[in-house]
Amino acid sequence: MDITVIPSVNEARSDDLVNKTVIVIDVLRATSTMLTALAHGCDAIYPVETVLQAKQLLLEQQKWLTGGERYCKKIPGFDLGNSPFEYMDDKIAGKTIILTTANGTRAIQKAIRSGTVLIASLLNGRACAMEAAALNKDIVILCSGTQDVFAFEDGICAGQLIEEIQGLSGQGKSVNVDDLGLCQLHSFRQVQSAMTEALLKSSNGKRLDKLGFREDVIYCSRMNLIPLVPIMQGGRLTLLPVKQLQ
Amino acid sequence: MDITVIPSVNEARSDDLVNKTVIVIDVLRATSTMLTALAHGCDAIYPVETVLQAKQLLLEQQKWLTGGERYCKKIPGFDLGNSPFEYMDDKIAGKTIILTTANGTRAIQKAIRSGTVLIASLLNGRACAMEAAALNKDIVILCSGTQDVFAFEDGICAGQLIEEIQGLSGQGKSVNVDDLGLCQLHSFRQVQSAMTEALLKSSNGKRLDKLGFREDVIYCSRMNLIPLVPIMQGGRLTLLPVKQLQ
Repeated sequence: MDITVIPSVNEARSDDLVNKTVIVIDVLRATSTMLTALAHGCDAIYPVETVLQAKQLLLEQQKWLTGGERYCKKIPGFDLGNSPFEYMDDKIAGKTIILTTANGTRAIQKAIRSGTVLIASLLNGRACAMEAAALNKDIVILCSGTQDVFAFEDGICAGQLIEEIQGLSGQGKSVNVDDLGLCQLHSFRQVQSAMTEALLKSSNGKRLDKLGFREDVIYCSRMNLIPLVPIMQGGRLTLLPVKQLQ
Repeated sequence: MDITVIPSVNEARSDDLVNKTVIVIDVLRATSTMLTALAHGCDAIYPVETVLQAKQLLLEQQKWLTGGERYCKKIPGFDLGNSPFEYMDDKIAGKTIILTTANGTRAIQKAIRSGTVLIASLLNGRACAMEAAALNKDIVILCSGTQDVFAFEDGICAGQLIEEIQGLSGQGKSVNVDDLGLCQLHSFRQVQSAMTEALLKSSNGKRLDKLGFREDVIYCSRMNLIPLVPIMQGGRLTLLPVKQLQ
């Protein structure tokens, strides 16, 4: 099994994703928020690229909620922003959400023609690694990045996934990791015991802290808090049935 | 002082290099070989992009030597390949060498319009960091990569440089490192005590090992063996005067 890491959306070529298992990461905050919403009873999430697409979809489905951000801030007229804490509320339960974020939802759309698209964050790294390994195909880890630039926390999460998948390979799977993946793996091992501090020192961590979202960064740095895995099917994200974690 | 890391030649935009100190890295093997040659008495190295350019320059300067590689192998008709061990010989002393390699010399040419171009490898990381810090300008670390893909060992060397520059910042300089640089810094810290093993597991390390160049990889993994710094001036590389190392 080959594992390739793509450092930001801009670097992803659709051709390289065909027939692969693609794992999309946007730790701060889109994929952490998506997972949190689904774990709190949200029915499904439609990740769309643009605000216009979100509004058009809302015209067709007026009971759905809209969420997302641009420049880390809630989009005017939308029900929800991009803070995971907004998606722990009772009003989420049983609802469908249309979500658009600057980087994460764009990465998902880029991956949509691949074999399988799974959603990862530090919150569900282990569970996502187990699902991806079980699919037994080559894996592409697509770090969303920020404005087409590599983001530290996405790379660290890629390292977490590789660490977990390599751990499973003790069960007989041979895993080949590309050079960027190797680098992220070592980086993850170096910071895993002080994850929150590491994230607070990243560009996005510092930006969110300044904007008053320090608690979001702290929450998103908690590894394996939620053993659930969102999957993209038919244009929407839902949760895979729970696997027995080891 | 800002430090930015560029993962491969292809990602470098000339505009981003203007007025910066650019440090070019190609650990396996171009920049390790350049440093080794200059440390063994070679007068100067002309790094050129193509084999044709090398041959044209040779027509003008017939006493010069030609060196370099394509696909890790010596170029037909050239005097020398790209193994650092070929450049420790007496026949190098006092000579000028025209060098063309697949990635490293291309990266140097890309950087040529910046403020200052220094050459780094693990062999001279500390010395190069000291020179770069002393210039007191923003630093761009340009990892050559391989065929426009990030190479593990170049990233590790970027981490080494950042570690050293941050160490100097205890002397009053504030250093801002971008997210890719942070990742390389952590990765370097994780592998520094087993550098040779780490390099032998990288793509280029494995490729060179298979081609019979295992000793080259081991040599290139030796940190701070040569406290000298090549600089690009007037189209050629020579050594900077030795600084007192601390």
